[in-house]
Amino acid sequence: MRAIIDWDRTARTGTAEAILCDGKRVADIEAILDAAAERSLFLTRLTSDAFASLSARHQASLDYDPLSKTAIYGPLPLLTRPATVAIVAAGLADAAVAQEAARALRFQGEETTLVGDVGVAGLWRLMDRLDDIMAHKVVIVVAGMEGALFSVLAGLIDAPIIAVPTSNGYGVATGGRAALSTALATCAPGVVTVNIDNGFGAAAAAQRILRLIDRSA
Amino acid sequence: MRAIIDWDRTARTGTAEAILCDGKRVADIEAILDAAAERSLFLTRLTSDAFASLSARHQASLDYDPLSKTAIYGPLPLLTRPATVAIVAAGLADAAVAQEAARALRFQGEETTLVGDVGVAGLWRLMDRLDDIMAHKVVIVVAGMEGALFSVLAGLIDAPIIAVPTSNGYGVATGGRAALSTALATCAPGVVTVNIDNGFGAAAAAQRILRLIDRSA
Amino acid sequence: MRAIIDWDRTARTGTAEAILCDGKRVADIEAILDAAAERSLFLTRLTSDAFASLSARHQASLDYDPLSKTAIYGPLPLLTRPATVAIVAAGLADAAVAQEAARALRFQGEETTLVGDVGVAGLWRLMDRLDDIMAHKVVIVVAGMEGALFSVLAGLIDAPIIAVPTSNGYGVATGGRAALSTALATCAPGVVTVNIDNGFGAAAAAQRILRLIDRSA
Amino acid sequence: MRAIIDWDRTARTGTAEAILCDGKRVADIEAILDAAAERSLFLTRLTSDAFASLSARHQASLDYDPLSKTAIYGPLPLLTRPATVAIVAAGLADAAVAQEAARALRFQGEETTLVGDVGVAGLWRLMDRLDDIMAHKVVIVVAGMEGALFSVLAGLIDAPIIAVPTSNGYGVATGGRAALSTALATCAPGVVTVNIDNGFGAAAAAQRILRLIDRSA
Amino acid sequence: MRAIIDWDRTARTGTAEAILCDGKRVADIEAILDAAAERSLFLTRLTSDAFASLSARHQASLDYDPLSKTAIYGPLPLLTRPATVAIVAAGLADAAVAQEAARALRFQGEETTLVGDVGVAGLWRLMDRLDDIMAHKVVIVVAGMEGALFSVLAGLIDAPIIAVPTSNGYGVATGGRAALSTALATCAPGVVTVNIDNGFGAAAAAQRILRLIDRSA
Amino acid sequence: MRAIIDWDRTARTGTAEAILCDGKRVADIEAILDAAAERSLFLTRLTSDAFASLSARHQASLDYDPLSKTAIYGPLPLLTRPATVAIVAAGLADAAVAQEAARALRFQGEETTLVGDVGVAGLWRLMDRLDDIMAHKVVIVVAGMEGALFSVLAGLIDAPIIAVPTSNGYGVATGGRAALSTALATCAPGVVTVNIDNGFGAAAAAQRILRLIDRSA
Amino acid sequence: MRAIIDWDRTARTGTAEAILCDGKRVADIEAILDAAAERSLFLTRLTSDAFASLSARHQASLDYDPLSKTAIYGPLPLLTRPATVAIVAAGLADAAVAQEAARALRFQGEETTLVGDVGVAGLWRLMDRLDDIMAHKVVIVVAGMEGALFSVLAGLIDAPIIAVPTSNGYGVATGGRAALSTALATCAPGVVTVNIDNGFGAAAAAQRILRLIDRSA
Amino acid sequence: MRAIIDWDRTARTGTAEAILCDGKRVADIEAILDAAAERSLFLTRLTSDAFASLSARHQASLDYDPLSKTAIYGPLPLLTRPATVAIVAAGLADAAVAQEAARALRFQGEETTLVGDVGVAGLWRLMDRLDDIMAHKVVIVVAGMEGALFSVLAGLIDAPIIAVPTSNGYGVATGGRAALSTALATCAPGVVTVNIDNGFGAAAAAQRILRLIDRSA
Repeated sequence: MRAIIDWDRTARTGTAEAILCDGKRVADIEAILDAAAERSLFLTRLTSDAFASLSARHQASLDYDPLSKTAIYGPLPLLTRPATVAIVAAGLADAAVAQEAARALRFQGEETTLVGDVGVAGLWRLMDRLDDIMAHKVVIVVAGMEGALFSVLAGLIDAPIIAVPTSNGYGVATGGRAALSTALATCAPGVVTVNIDNGFGAAAAAQRILRLIDRSA
Repeated sequence: MRAIIDWDRTARTGTAEAILCDGKRVADIEAILDAAAERSLFLTRLTSDAFASLSARHQASLDYDPLSKTAIYGPLPLLTRPATVAIVAAGLADAAVAQEAARALRFQGEETTLVGDVGVAGLWRLMDRLDDIMAHKVVIVVAGMEGALFSVLAGLIDAPIIAVPTSNGYGVATGGRAALSTALATCAPGVVTVNIDNGFGAAAAAQRILRLIDRSA
Repeated sequence: MRAIIDWDRTARTGTAEAILCDGKRVADIEAILDAAAERSLFLTRLTSDAFASLSARHQASLDYDPLSKTAIYGPLPLLTRPATVAIVAAGLADAAVAQEAARALRFQGEETTLVGDVGVAGLWRLMDRLDDIMAHKVVIVVAGMEGALFSVLAGLIDAPIIAVPTSNGYGVATGGRAALSTALATCAPGVVTVNIDNGFGAAAAAQRILRLIDRSA
Repeated sequence: MRAIIDWDRTARTGTAEAILCDGKRVADIEAILDAAAERSLFLTRLTSDAFASLSARHQASLDYDPLSKTAIYGPLPLLTRPATVAIVAAGLADAAVAQEAARALRFQGEETTLVGDVGVAGLWRLMDRLDDIMAHKVVIVVAGMEGALFSVLAGLIDAPIIAVPTSNGYGVATGGRAALSTALATCAPGVVTVNIDNGFGAAAAAQRILRLIDRSA
Repeated sequence: MRAIIDWDRTARTGTAEAILCDGKRVADIEAILDAAAERSLFLTRLTSDAFASLSARHQASLDYDPLSKTAIYGPLPLLTRPATVAIVAAGLADAAVAQEAARALRFQGEETTLVGDVGVAGLWRLMDRLDDIMAHKVVIVVAGMEGALFSVLAGLIDAPIIAVPTSNGYGVATGGRAALSTALATCAPGVVTVNIDNGFGAAAAAQRILRLIDRSA
Repeated sequence: MRAIIDWDRTARTGTAEAILCDGKRVADIEAILDAAAERSLFLTRLTSDAFASLSARHQASLDYDPLSKTAIYGPLPLLTRPATVAIVAAGLADAAVAQEAARALRFQGEETTLVGDVGVAGLWRLMDRLDDIMAHKVVIVVAGMEGALFSVLAGLIDAPIIAVPTSNGYGVATGGRAALSTALATCAPGVVTVNIDNGFGAAAAAQRILRLIDRSA
Repeated sequence: MRAIIDWDRTARTGTAEAILCDGKRVADIEAILDAAAERSLFLTRLTSDAFASLSARHQASLDYDPLSKTAIYGPLPLLTRPATVAIVAAGLADAAVAQEAARALRFQGEETTLVGDVGVAGLWRLMDRLDDIMAHKVVIVVAGMEGALFSVLAGLIDAPIIAVPTSNGYGVATGGRAALSTALATCAPGVVTVNIDNGFGAAAAAQRILRLIDRSA
Repeated sequence: MRAIIDWDRTARTGTAEAILCDGKRVADIEAILDAAAERSLFLTRLTSDAFASLSARHQASLDYDPLSKTAIYGPLPLLTRPATVAIVAAGLADAAVAQEAARALRFQGEETTLVGDVGVAGLWRLMDRLDDIMAHKVVIVVAGMEGALFSVLAGLIDAPIIAVPTSNGYGVATGGRAALSTALATCAPGVVTVNIDNGFGAAAAAQRILRLIDRSA
């Protein structure tokens, strides 16, 4: 089977072509990179082992980040404005997913601000950063465990707010189900959510909003 | 227990105060209306039976819609611009949830366009309306059963797109779980979702985006 | 089958005998009341219909509360001290469960303070009552939907804190599962939980703590 | 325990004997191959490690494919007609399951056409291949994630259509549950499904249909 | 919202337009019937109460069957050949779903044979009817509880076999989940399945096969 | 569809023919009774409403028990020995299921002893009856909620012990799932279980054991 | 923590002391063996790795079987009668669990007959062995996948029949849930079940029955 | 992202700062230790591999316990009173979780008594230790499998009792779900529970109670 890259996607949906590497073979990924040629690509869920299995030439063509398991193929766009998106993470264990979102936005030319380790067990940590968060257009909130941060933050700000539940946690939180159900069942109106650990999806949603603003301006 | 209405919510989060009537007693609802006085309120999940149990005076103070089980207390704001949000519904059975979203946005002064009965089993129905949908800033998609409409539409347009899975369906779709998992697992990047049947939540999310545009303009 | 009442339970476990009426027939309940004679009993989950089906004599012997579906048989103990337990409820829909806990503690001679409608979507409501809550020895928190209140409050106070998830909610919150998983997965250390809607169980746990204090004094 | 091979199965049910290697020991598999003698066998879920553990003689007797983890014992039948079955795969990660189906049909003497990487996020990819798909008698659709391809394709063609949900995906799609529920809850009438990742089962179902056609001709 | 009937569906997918009445209002159904005019329609999940709520004129236009909750609008096609499909039902409680499948096929001009009450607890009942079943081209098997009939019958015949799990059962079989998992996990190759209680879907799948035979003849 | 009664079942499997009335229509049940003629039948899950819908003649032919929702058609066998089976029930709410088991055994000529209201929250109640329980050959244990009684009793006696989880309970115990998982996960070896609320199944299992003893004597 | 071995268990419950090695450390197991001294022990779930980690002296004291992961400490009792229990396994992948049951019974002095690879997809395999199976007092049935064998066999014989669902399977059968739900939801009365993969538990239940027979003789 | 340690937590909530190491990188943990300087920290879920990856200096600064996967940074407080908390564990496999609770309390200056291997399958083991258990102020009960110990012990004592379900078990007990549902659904009033395997959480809850006693004295 050969990949059919959807090079028109950016024009159609505002999202550049991205490759989910999970389940793809090394040869698949190399073939996709070869086909990309001069175009840019964003790769997600590329494990360190998979990256190391690529040929030296292919490795060299990628800007790889092991924390977020993302790789960028092709030159990064210049940044033309200050950070538009705040990425708020509940704990250090959520850093990988937060980074996936940040890298996906950077790939599209958007700067982001990371506000980390502000879980609700110590509410003052969040309050200290609230003004900073509110200075951004869109807010992505990344949290595992029970995900109470989604509700608390949504009750405090009026920006579009996108929840990313993460799979950090154990017992009833295993796999991210508890955080996901909090994001969906939240009593704070206007929270939207993406799949567990889907930092890339949150970035794509944020970009849909940013493009709308740019068009509306 | 007495209600503590969060009258400042609009200023803080861009969402007017809304009352989820599920689980509240008739006396609770009447007391909240009395406390509202000159302010406006949006009531959700107010069943026909509950509405009929209110005193005549309280009934008369409400603009009640039995399909969406919503009621509006207080005068509606004037509409000052054409429809900003398209509400796309997969089938007739999704009408109640679509209407909840439409009424919630109307309560906040936003006009909406309803695009109904365009499920993917007959794809031409959606294609026929695509230009119309794309003329709006934000798109809310309402679907039950397997919810394939979320993915298909997100692959065709670049506006912010908010999925509302509905509880229409039977067997594995009972309660809306199949549609919800489609909204979350979608292969089309940038879809965000709210809880099953939560038309009000989708409207609140859309309004966060619209306010951002207005602020950015 | 005949009931075997465990009249020694108070001596053994600090909890007076209580009757869960769910699943019992009217004749069962009447026979238990007859057997109780001069002793006291606390009845839970006694629906209005079941109460109305009891003989007039049995109805008259009960102090029945339809909101919490509890009944008290026998005289109430005198109150000998101010409220020891704060019962904090996220919303009006949680009133029934909060009331079950309050009545169960009152049956055992403990006064309680109800702090209601302080969900985290409007955090200031909780902050306004924090000093009041902290003036009590034990805190019972009652919340449905996503139950974020459990985590937020546990991060703010150092009293023993018992979560009671309620079945209020829809979609992924149906039946109380989302609130329960928040109570269990909370990032705030020291929260303990009981079964969904189990106000009586929370009261029994609170009483175990209060008795320990009395013994230790 | 010794295997009791059901050599009559082809006559009775139209499916040649196949061996599910999962959970069987190397010695079990070798004994089955020895017992097969001159007869043919199709082996599924034979991992590379298990294959490597077989004796050199047994390895040499097999046509092994590591992608699909299938092996064929005995000579392949000649192909006597063009491809009767189209195997449509949503993404590259579905290649292994698609290949299991293709190999199982080839083992029975049926040629297949693979139509790959046509997920609905870029609908034009599917539309481009629609005529090609419709030139086949039976269509097997292989998809993970949310499986929207099942519904979309079933709304476009009138051939028998067999869904194979795959376990590709993460979060709520983990293990293939989201794709399975889409296959079952689909709004497009006439889709049937097999177990997650069961390419062999889909092939067996396709073959039941093809045999019926041959008998009816 | 107005219905957009997909009158071309038969030409495109081999399935006549059908209306799932679940979740639709009486006015919706009446409007659809009015729009149908001279064309035929098949209505599923039309409860007796909903049927009784239709206007007398609309009731009179329908051939309604309360057991299967189906209605046929428009004249039935003549039968031009003997029964092509055997519908095998495990127990009397599966009659409603079996009847839905039979009526859906009859609506399309196909005769069916019902083979009822042949659950595996008394295997001789199935064996007695085996020759009769095998005289048909396609077999639909309808079973609730644990659904063992799917596996047993699939091991005995070589026709295409479509499982319809039903929601009959209690405890772990509640809602049909046990029968569904048997249909999917079956050890007998070539069984395909549709959603729980989806007799209509099984009929549509059978018809896809029958049309293929007719085209291939 | 007509019922095919398996009149030979007693000879083959040691269980008399029983009719699960759930999902059967009144006419089905009446037809089965008519076909039974001089033979005996045991009916389960016959609701009071369904019983009341039978013709007066059919009602008169049945020994109906509303608590267990069972009916006996035909004369009861004489009792020829003292109780062989102890039925131990955790609480009064388990009486209906315990009674279903008792009636099913009585229908087959076996006397039972009911030991009721001996849940583990008051362990002395069980200890008081232990000698009585141990005087029986087989023990059926009926419990809802968390079902701890299964483990405790199995650690104390050496008779065959059959658990029947019941659907009594709320929250995580809703539908009997908590009691069922206790029965299966028990740390006390030798407990076997049947489906939730399946008193009849436990009776059938007990009878298989009793028949074996009689044959072995 | 030190083990407290329940050496009286045989006298009390008819089951010799067994050690579940899962989750125990090597030092724990060695200490238990040392404490056993002249008494016998049955060890379950002792992986090959754990066995290899024991000291040479402890290894030498055990009769270890890697297939079933069981070990026997102490001399085996003499066999004094022919096989009393038939262990019927659906497929080769069920051999490990069947062997656990066989070894547990052998440890207690009972001989067993293994009837293997008789899954219902080829029903004649089971029919061929039916007389052999019926020559035993108790029947243990071991099956994974969908577990249809439980229902089929229970409809054919009248011996006590104990189902052991196994975790063999994939997709919806992962972890054994499909086989378990079949065992519980079976339409064949009198089947009882134990936990997934619990061959030891089935043996303990069989032994409870055999001891009862011996006492009753 | 940098950690923001909540050094004020002890003053605010009675719990010293603890670090959940799951999901954190080695560099994160080292940075946190460096920031702690003279203050104390409790680390949970620090695997042996993660501990071994720390620099020699950081390893040397920790009191690491591989059984409970906990580490203590900083000097331990002196013990000033006899054990206040009894930790009751059902089996040896629960030792790791029991140890996590014991170490967390020791870190806060509380001595504990471990009462191990007292599961309910041999009830005498628990009864033998009952007086010992009752000599403590608070009881933590640690159990996997079906967790019946929670209910039994809660029926026998009147101290505050905190259940910790563990993930020991297989089949339906996999991951600790069976034990958790027992803890929540218990028929013994006053049991509270924490997340599966959360020994630290139970310790924090116990400490909230102990601090309350100290304040009340």
